[in-house]
Amino acid sequence: MIAQYRGVYSTGLPLPDEALSAFFEAWSPAPKHVETVSLEAALGRVLARDVRSGVDVPEHPRSAMDGFALRADDVRFARPAQPRFLTLVGEVRPGSRAALAEGTTVRIATGAPLPRGADAVVRLEDVFLDTSAVGISKPVTSGTDVIAVGEDIAAGATLAPCGTVLRAATLGVLAALGRERVEVYRRPAVALMSTGDEVVPVGASPRTGEVRDSNGVALAALLRSFGVETVTAVHARDDIASLEHTLARGVDAHDAVVLSGGSSVGARDLTTAVLAKREPPGVIVHGVRMKPGRPVLLAASGTRPIIGLPGNPTAAMLALMVLGPPIFAKLTGAPAASPSSGGIALEPLVGKTGWACYVPVRVDAGGGVRPVEHFCSTFLSSLVEADGYVYVDPSRASIAPGESVRVYRLP
Amino acid sequence: MIAQYRGVYSTGLPLPDEALSAFFEAWSPAPKHVETVSLEAALGRVLARDVRSGVDVPEHPRSAMDGFALRADDVRFARPAQPRFLTLVGEVRPGSRAALAEGTTVRIATGAPLPRGADAVVRLEDVFLDTSAVGISKPVTSGTDVIAVGEDIAAGATLAPCGTVLRAATLGVLAALGRERVEVYRRPAVALMSTGDEVVPVGASPRTGEVRDSNGVALAALLRSFGVETVTAVHARDDIASLEHTLARGVDAHDAVVLSGGSSVGARDLTTAVLAKREPPGVIVHGVRMKPGRPVLLAASGTRPIIGLPGNPTAAMLALMVLGPPIFAKLTGAPAASPSSGGIALEPLVGKTGWACYVPVRVDAGGGVRPVEHFCSTFLSSLVEADGYVYVDPSRASIAPGESVRVYRLP
Repeated sequence: MIAQYRGVYSTGLPLPDEALSAFFEAWSPAPKHVETVSLEAALGRVLARDVRSGVDVPEHPRSAMDGFALRADDVRFARPAQPRFLTLVGEVRPGSRAALAEGTTVRIATGAPLPRGADAVVRLEDVFLDTSAVGISKPVTSGTDVIAVGEDIAAGATLAPCGTVLRAATLGVLAALGRERVEVYRRPAVALMSTGDEVVPVGASPRTGEVRDSNGVALAALLRSFGVETVTAVHARDDIASLEHTLARGVDAHDAVVLSGGSSVGARDLTTAVLAKREPPGVIVHGVRMKPGRPVLLAASGTRPIIGLPGNPTAAMLALMVLGPPIFAKLTGAPAASPSSGGIALEPLVGKTGWACYVPVRVDAGGGVRPVEHFCSTFLSSLVEADGYVYVDPSRASIAPGESVRVYRLP
Repeated sequence: MIAQYRGVYSTGLPLPDEALSAFFEAWSPAPKHVETVSLEAALGRVLARDVRSGVDVPEHPRSAMDGFALRADDVRFARPAQPRFLTLVGEVRPGSRAALAEGTTVRIATGAPLPRGADAVVRLEDVFLDTSAVGISKPVTSGTDVIAVGEDIAAGATLAPCGTVLRAATLGVLAALGRERVEVYRRPAVALMSTGDEVVPVGASPRTGEVRDSNGVALAALLRSFGVETVTAVHARDDIASLEHTLARGVDAHDAVVLSGGSSVGARDLTTAVLAKREPPGVIVHGVRMKPGRPVLLAASGTRPIIGLPGNPTAAMLALMVLGPPIFAKLTGAPAASPSSGGIALEPLVGKTGWACYVPVRVDAGGGVRPVEHFCSTFLSSLVEADGYVYVDPSRASIAPGESVRVYRLP
C-alpha cells in the first residue's frame, strides 16, 4: 500500500498539457447534434453551418448619410464664392424609384435608396438650404456617401463560418439577410455528480461532518459559462453500487459527466472499478502535476468524457477552469478560448518549480495584479474575492512584481 | 432652416461624458424592484441585499487534506531515523465524533471533521503505512492541515455586499450557508422601438427602399448583455400618431425605451414633440460629439430613460455600447463596467481632434490591435469582424502603432 499512495501523489504525473494530450489521444467525441433556433435565442450559440449571403447588400445603391441626393456632374463647377443651386424637388420616400432630373436634388435619409440618375449625396451640414433650392459650394465626387450594390455584403460571401460563436453584430447581419432562424450546435448536457457520504443537499441541515453540496452549485455555474445547456445535479454515496448506478445514469443520459470529489484515492479506486466495466477507454489520466488540482481524473466511457475533480472547492473550480475549456470545446463546437486580459504583477505570484500552478488573483482598475489573501484550496471564500487566476509555469518558482501576466477570468 | 440644420450638427455638441452628466442631472431612476431566485438561476444577477454568514464555516475543525488525523503531541519526538508509529484505529466516518486516544490515528479524508483530541493531519504521502500502524518521521505542528472553526467564513462576516454581480464562487458560498434562493434586483424590461417607414420585419421581403429590422436583432442582443431581461421589439412609422402611440406603450409598460433610427433630424422633431406632451424631463441631449453616434438622443419620461440611436447599424451598436452601460447600470444595480482588455496598436487608429471617436478593431492572439478593414458606420458587416472598439479621445487625431490601448469587447 505504501507504493500505491506514493505513486499517485509524487513523481511522474503529467503536466496539464500532457494530461490533455493523453486524453485527446484516447478519446473521440460523438458527432455534434444540430438544432435550429430563433435569432432572439441565438446569442452565444455556435454556428453549425457556414452562413453565406444569397444576395448583395444593399441590393440597390443607398445613401450613407442624411443629406441631398444629386448628380455629381451638376456641381462640378461649384465653388465657395459661387455656389451651385439645385432645385429641391422633394424627398426620397420608401419604395420610390423616381428618376432625378438634371439640376435637381431630393432630400434623402440615411439608408434610403438613391433615385435613378443620382450618384452622390451631400450631407445636410454641407449645404446652404432654402425652401426650394439647395446651395452646394464645392464639387462632389461620384459615389460620395453612397453605398454601392454589394458594398456591405457581396452575394456569395461567407459571412460567418461554421464554428463561429454568434455575437450581436452577426445576428444583425443574419436578420438583414432575412434569416429568422439559424442552425447551431445543440449545447451539451452534463451530469454533475457530487460524490461522498458526507455531502448533503443545500437545503439540508448538515450534521457534524456533513457538508452542503456547495461545489455542485459553483461548478454548475462554471459549466454554464462553457456553453453547457443542462446541468443535472446528482449525488452518489461512497460505495461501488451507488457510484456505479449514478455514473451509469449520468453517462447514458448526458454528453459528459463531471464528478465533484470523485478524484480522491478512495473515489479514484471506485471510479476506476466502475469505469473498467463500461466502454473503453475508461480512466486515461489520474493525477496531474498542477496546483491546485493534483488529484484530477480524466476518463471517458465511449464518446462521453468524464472529469473527476477534487473535493476542495477552490481546487475543483480552478481545475475545471484549466482542463474544462478544451474538453468542452469539442462538445460545443466553439473555440476553447478562456476570457483573459493582460496585467502587471504588483506582488510576487508564488508557484512551484516543476508544477503547473494557478494562482487566484485580484485585478485593480489599472490592471495591477495581486494574489488573493488567505488563499487555501479548501476554502469556499478563497475564490469569492478572486477576479481570475494567473498561470505560473513549471519552469519557475514565482512571478516577480513588475512582470506582465495574463489573467484568466473567473465567471 | 439653415440655422436649424447647422446647429444640430456642428459645434457646441457635448462630448459623451458631458452628455451623460447632463442626462444624470436631469434624470432619476425609479427604485429597483427585488425578486427572489434560485441559486441555479442566479449567475450574473445582482444582489439586492448584503449577504452575511449566520454561522462559522466550518462549524467544526476539518481536515484540509487526505491523510491521518493525530495528536501533534504524540509525534513530537519523531525523526526520520526513528519514526513514531501510531496505531491505526480506522477511518473518520460522516457524523462520527469519536475521540482519538493517545498514540492512535485515524484515516481522514479532505473536509472530514477532526476527531476530538486530534489537532493535526499528516498527508498520505508523508507517512509509512502498514495495515495496523502509521509511521511518522518528523514532528507536526498543532493545527497542520486543519481548517479551524470560522477560518473559511467567520460568523457575521459580509460575504458579498448589495450590488455584487453573482459569480460561480459566490453562489458556491451561498450554497454552503444553506441559502437555496437569493434576493436580486429584477432585471429591467426594455422596449426596443425601430422607427421608420422603410423598416420591415426580418421575415418580410423588402421592396426597393425597404430594409429588414436587423438593428432590432443586434441591439436586443446587446441590451441582453447589459443585464436586460425582456426586450420587446416594436415598430413605429414616421408619423407623429404612430410614434406617440408606440412610445407611450413603450414607456408605460417598460423600464426603458431604446429607439433605433429615432435620432435623425425628422425623428428627432417627432420624438421631441411626443416627449413634450409627457412627463418631464423630456429630451435632455440631442447630438453628441462622438464618432460614430453623433445624432444620439438622450431623454426621459419620468423615471424611464429613452435612448435614441442612429439608424446606421454600426453607429447604433457603438453608441449603445458607449452610452448604454452607465444608464442601464442605474436600472440593473450592477457596476457600469464594460469588459475590456489591454492591447498594443499595430496600425494607426484614426480619430478626429475635438471628437470622441470609437474605432472598431480586431485583436490578435498576442494582443495586437488593428482597425477593421472597410469600416463604414452604415455597413452591417463592419462590426461582424470587430472584436471590440478602441476609444480615441478628443485631444488627439489618432493613436500611433506601438501605443498601449484598451479594447472594449463587443458581445
